Amino acid sequence: MRELLISVIIVCSLSSYAQNILISGMDNMKWEKVMPGVWKASFGTSGLDPLAYTNPPKKEAITELGDAPFPFDEKSTFYQLTPERAIIRMPLNPAESIYGLGLEFKGINRRGEVYTLKVDHYGGVKGYTHAPVPFYVSNKGYGVLINTSKRVKIHVGVGNRKDSKRPDPIDRTTGENWDSQPLSDAIEASIQGDGLEVYIFTGNTTLEVVQRYNLYCGGGVLPPKWGLGFWHRMHTKSSSDDIFKEISEFKKYNFPIDVLGLEPGWQSFAYPCSYDWDSTRFPNPKQFVQTLNDDGIKVNLWENPYVAPSSTMFKDISPFTGSHTVWLGEVPDYTIPEAQKVLLNHHQKNHLDIGVSGYKFDEVDGYDKWLWPDHATFPSGNDAVEIRQLYGQMIQKMFGDHLKKQNKRTYSLVRASYIGASSSPFVIYSDHYDHKNYVTALVNSSMSGLLWTPEIRSAKSAEEWVRRFQTVCFSPLMQLNAWASGTKPWSFPEVSDIIRNNIKLRMDLLPYLYTAFYDYEQKGIPPFRAMVLESGFNVTGTLIDGKLDGETNPYEEQIRMEVTDQYMMGPSILVAPIFTGETERKVILPKGNWYDFYTGALVGNGETITIKSKLEQIPLFVKNGGIIPMLSSKEVTDSNKQSLEVRHYGTKENTFQVYNDDGETFNYENGDNTLLELKVTKGKGGELRGESKFINNKNYSYGKVNWLWMSN
Amino acid sequence: MRELLISVIIVCSLSSYAQNILISGMDNMKWEKVMPGVWKASFGTSGLDPLAYTNPPKKEAITELGDAPFPFDEKSTFYQLTPERAIIRMPLNPAESIYGLGLEFKGINRRGEVYTLKVDHYGGVKGYTHAPVPFYVSNKGYGVLINTSKRVKIHVGVGNRKDSKRPDPIDRTTGENWDSQPLSDAIEASIQGDGLEVYIFTGNTTLEVVQRYNLYCGGGVLPPKWGLGFWHRMHTKSSSDDIFKEISEFKKYNFPIDVLGLEPGWQSFAYPCSYDWDSTRFPNPKQFVQTLNDDGIKVNLWENPYVAPSSTMFKDISPFTGSHTVWLGEVPDYTIPEAQKVLLNHHQKNHLDIGVSGYKFDEVDGYDKWLWPDHATFPSGNDAVEIRQLYGQMIQKMFGDHLKKQNKRTYSLVRASYIGASSSPFVIYSDHYDHKNYVTALVNSSMSGLLWTPEIRSAKSAEEWVRRFQTVCFSPLMQLNAWASGTKPWSFPEVSDIIRNNIKLRMDLLPYLYTAFYDYEQKGIPPFRAMVLESGFNVTGTLIDGKLDGETNPYEEQIRMEVTDQYMMGPSILVAPIFTGETERKVILPKGNWYDFYTGALVGNGETITIKSKLEQIPLFVKNGGIIPMLSSKEVTDSNKQSLEVRHYGTKENTFQVYNDDGETFNYENGDNTLLELKVTKGKGGELRGESKFINNKNYSYGKVNWLWMSN
Repeated sequence: MRELLISVIIVCSLSSYAQNILISGMDNMKWEKVMPGVWKASFGTSGLDPLAYTNPPKKEAITELGDAPFPFDEKSTFYQLTPERAIIRMPLNPAESIYGLGLEFKGINRRGEVYTLKVDHYGGVKGYTHAPVPFYVSNKGYGVLINTSKRVKIHVGVGNRKDSKRPDPIDRTTGENWDSQPLSDAIEASIQGDGLEVYIFTGNTTLEVVQRYNLYCGGGVLPPKWGLGFWHRMHTKSSSDDIFKEISEFKKYNFPIDVLGLEPGWQSFAYPCSYDWDSTRFPNPKQFVQTLNDDGIKVNLWENPYVAPSSTMFKDISPFTGSHTVWLGEVPDYTIPEAQKVLLNHHQKNHLDIGVSGYKFDEVDGYDKWLWPDHATFPSGNDAVEIRQLYGQMIQKMFGDHLKKQNKRTYSLVRASYIGASSSPFVIYSDHYDHKNYVTALVNSSMSGLLWTPEIRSAKSAEEWVRRFQTVCFSPLMQLNAWASGTKPWSFPEVSDIIRNNIKLRMDLLPYLYTAFYDYEQKGIPPFRAMVLESGFNVTGTLIDGKLDGETNPYEEQIRMEVTDQYMMGPSILVAPIFTGETERKVILPKGNWYDFYTGALVGNGETITIKSKLEQIPLFVKNGGIIPMLSSKEVTDSNKQSLEVRHYGTKENTFQVYNDDGETFNYENGDNTLLELKVTKGKGGELRGESKFINNKNYSYGKVNWLWMSN
Repeated sequence: MRELLISVIIVCSLSSYAQNILISGMDNMKWEKVMPGVWKASFGTSGLDPLAYTNPPKKEAITELGDAPFPFDEKSTFYQLTPERAIIRMPLNPAESIYGLGLEFKGINRRGEVYTLKVDHYGGVKGYTHAPVPFYVSNKGYGVLINTSKRVKIHVGVGNRKDSKRPDPIDRTTGENWDSQPLSDAIEASIQGDGLEVYIFTGNTTLEVVQRYNLYCGGGVLPPKWGLGFWHRMHTKSSSDDIFKEISEFKKYNFPIDVLGLEPGWQSFAYPCSYDWDSTRFPNPKQFVQTLNDDGIKVNLWENPYVAPSSTMFKDISPFTGSHTVWLGEVPDYTIPEAQKVLLNHHQKNHLDIGVSGYKFDEVDGYDKWLWPDHATFPSGNDAVEIRQLYGQMIQKMFGDHLKKQNKRTYSLVRASYIGASSSPFVIYSDHYDHKNYVTALVNSSMSGLLWTPEIRSAKSAEEWVRRFQTVCFSPLMQLNAWASGTKPWSFPEVSDIIRNNIKLRMDLLPYLYTAFYDYEQKGIPPFRAMVLESGFNVTGTLIDGKLDGETNPYEEQIRMEVTDQYMMGPSILVAPIFTGETERKVILPKGNWYDFYTGALVGNGETITIKSKLEQIPLFVKNGGIIPMLSSKEVTDSNKQSLEVRHYGTKENTFQVYNDDGETFNYENGDNTLLELKVTKGKGGELRGESKFINNKNYSYGKVNWLWMSN
């Protein structure tokens, strides 16, 4: 009830701000309700439909979220079609914060900037990123999806029309509060095209908006259990013998390895790619993969989409390729079903049939100087810009569907993504290698239906090695990518034990983490989330005045304070990574009591605390009543029949339904899974009691359940 | 004959490389010769014509340059019109270097990059700059102008088509010479529009190509003499009293001041602007300007184009403004003649009539977050993108023509420029404040018909103050811009004498510099030039292999060696600025003997020399036979009847025609000017003799001519 009330207030405040405006040349958008809390409006004609490359909406789950009113006065939404562009205008409340717009490495608040949303290798240009998702989320309980494969240019609370509500100008010479960016009452976006399709998603909380968007795109992905284990990518020139040697070293140093990644060198030709095994380094691929699989190790293959003339699939794919080459390889037009068939058949026969578990699709983005030009032409007749924007998502959809038909789950990597990727079994990565930016990317990814890995590759010091590794252990995909550096988990011997313990902690948390992914799949709740998606967390981007400086800040630009260095993992754990050189850090706690994960001690409540850093640990905090099911110390990722250690933090009663299944097929969709309810209640004397009972079948039950009362 | 031979060789080598290719989907361009060495081809329909905002071609001067053959096989030039774009393809020789594309701050060689040529505040994005001129120059004796006001996306030797001549791919894992950018045989460019107009300019040297382009756009500009003097911009909050006080200080410290610049504070309202005098700081504008003019000081007014509601011209201009505001001011559509009239009438009445000499047009570029959006609409119906691209040049043309009608020369500042600016009396500047980048910009501007000032604003040390000031003294516009810092030439007292001497040297060089600008006006020869425009200078951008590094250089990108830190001033002086912290620097000398400007000593011939830096001096070198006419030490810029000190360097016979005129009107166009020929010959014993004689009228003759034999 209280939540409903909030959303009503929002509606009023928004509409009162942007009410009955008339914008010359623009017409009001006409909204049609397509599902509870989901509206759609469109005008003109669109090109390639991104939603056609996502999974169908999870209507039941959306309905369960309940309804919420249209977030503002329809008369405050506009569109216009000019000879050059399709334009929309959406209202914006003065106090509103805007998030999303895909994978960004800097900042989380999008207000006050102009973004050109273009799939590109990240190079610091606003909106040029691996996953420039044209979906924004407002902290006022709604989100807007611009469903187009054209590049969207979006002005997020930037600019004022002559005929819109706006502040009075200020004389800069005499005025105190002159602002290089006067307050704007709208978000305006445009594409160079003949029409647009726009969706609005509502929610009683910001998280619900994100959930609804994810659910509309098919919900979240549930990775196979092995996907949540330890990934190691070999040096690009490794042979099968090198790899067997390295695996035995992993055993010698007592480090787990669940997925082994092969880089370009596995192919007979790469950059452009043959997708055929190199017979000198891999004389017997079938046996090689089989041996690893028998050892419980999955194999993941790197490739990029540009086909080498020497590839055994070149002849078949060439008729379906575009006008330009990339690295002298041809560029398949995967909007053509026959082209997809050629690629899938080749990969089924040469990789999947012999046990390969998935891929790392590289270079599906890339700088303009490497990829095909905007003016390239493709046999389907589709615009080269649209194909580029969708390329990464197309490949995710192709392989996701292909493997699902075989009832096989995969967990793979891709460097470009787009609208509705939440249900794709792919995690994004980047060549950009800044630790802080990587954590910011992890935070941002949660608001655009994306999964991101801050993979570790190398470090300048043992301390950096530890700090980066700790972040990696608390991310969607725990990977050491040694393709160029040849590093190993024990590359800094003095900290090997710390690395091992951090990996082990991530492994032990599997029941908790796997359940968090199940919630992602079922309810669209991101397993790793921005703090602003957490109820009781009220830090929004506030502006701090900038000082005039003719050389460094001639426009007296303001600086926005944001929380980009901490995030939530699952329902109750707050992760606050330490960065190299930091002896302490500030952590902002949401309302309610929070406890130290390691000690169970109360650390604070809705306040900013300062903690001393320990090299051994990444700071983790658990909310009051947090129930954390963990494996009882074994470095494996298959948790069938293992006993559980269940930690409880604080003083609150609570329940947690820990999820389990076969860990690799889609049988769970037909109820072949286990839900074990963990329930904490208080006795007469106020003492805490824990009990567990099965909600459905016991096929994937656990052994003994040991309760740990962390805060007693 | 030899030169002709060279150009013939070029034609062969080019056509042999790109001969009789067929590019599927593309047609050959049809070229029509419009003047000697100038060809034109077009297809489809274009929007706003940039050449309509330049001056008419100087046909006689172009003809004097002589003819040169079409630079390559017509069958190797292509065009294509798709539903989204207009595309062209021009051939590129493997050994070719490409320059130009407007004001760039990094590098001079454009090959191997993709540029989106967009008028923008410089922020590091390739092609986003104050003057993104779509004109490139090849060191093979031709240049290509893409005459459009749309944003050009140009791939300069980047990318290969399936059906074009290209290298074989290399396997990156085993190949030594894998390149992230394989050699390309073409330059491809596109716009989002319905057609294009393209020009080709030829020349027997790279300089001749630039000359021909400049002459086709009306030739170069001859500034009034006062424009080449010392410019000082006051702090933005200065009142007329503050200014009188500051001028008396200039006298006290014995520094010249020829132009005084007023920043936003002169207006009653600024950001957006009123263009009306502020009555509190400037109670009597007419008397204020008159007093300065009587004192030999010109007044230059800062403004930006966004009109404040409080402006006395607001009511009249408002009907002609676009849909969006900038800093809450309205944006005039100056493609509409009535809009131009409103602005010009207001400025004539309030500024020009009382003696204002010119303007500094700021913010005609600006980041997207400040200017009008691409999707804005304007009353003329012209595309907002085209208006933005041309805005700076439109305003230059408007005021240039307006003042010429009054037979008044101006020299003004503007922050955005475009095609064909060479004949506009405007110099570009930027907020970007990196000394090395400023020198690179000076080098690049010469290849795109632009003038650039590396204005000084402040410095972190006396040394930086000196080094930046020295560059400023050897640039098209010598300006101290104290708008925010309030600095003065003597701000670092310990180096005041050095600053004064450097300014004085620039002043004394006026006869040489003024003549160099006359050559710009008449022959299109840039007074400040890139070394690659100098014959006998053969350093072109060579590539150095990059090392693979998974973190910092995963694509093994190559680095291009370029000469961006030295340039030519006038026919014979080479300027090699020293940057803060440098105790020595390398200087690359073209072929022939070169001499130290200060001592006359021989320093080298076609070689790289290393020189020790002296704080007092900016290194200057003069070519063999160089004749440098200088004023005999008086700190004024009006050189009528002053005696000349004529320096001769080296051992060669030579002649130099020093130019002079009234220095402020256009009467020189009707022959009201003086050319004094300075001739150096050798006597029987080989001793050098100097004589001077008038070529035409003596109205602007000099007094005594004193010869100085620097190298004897």
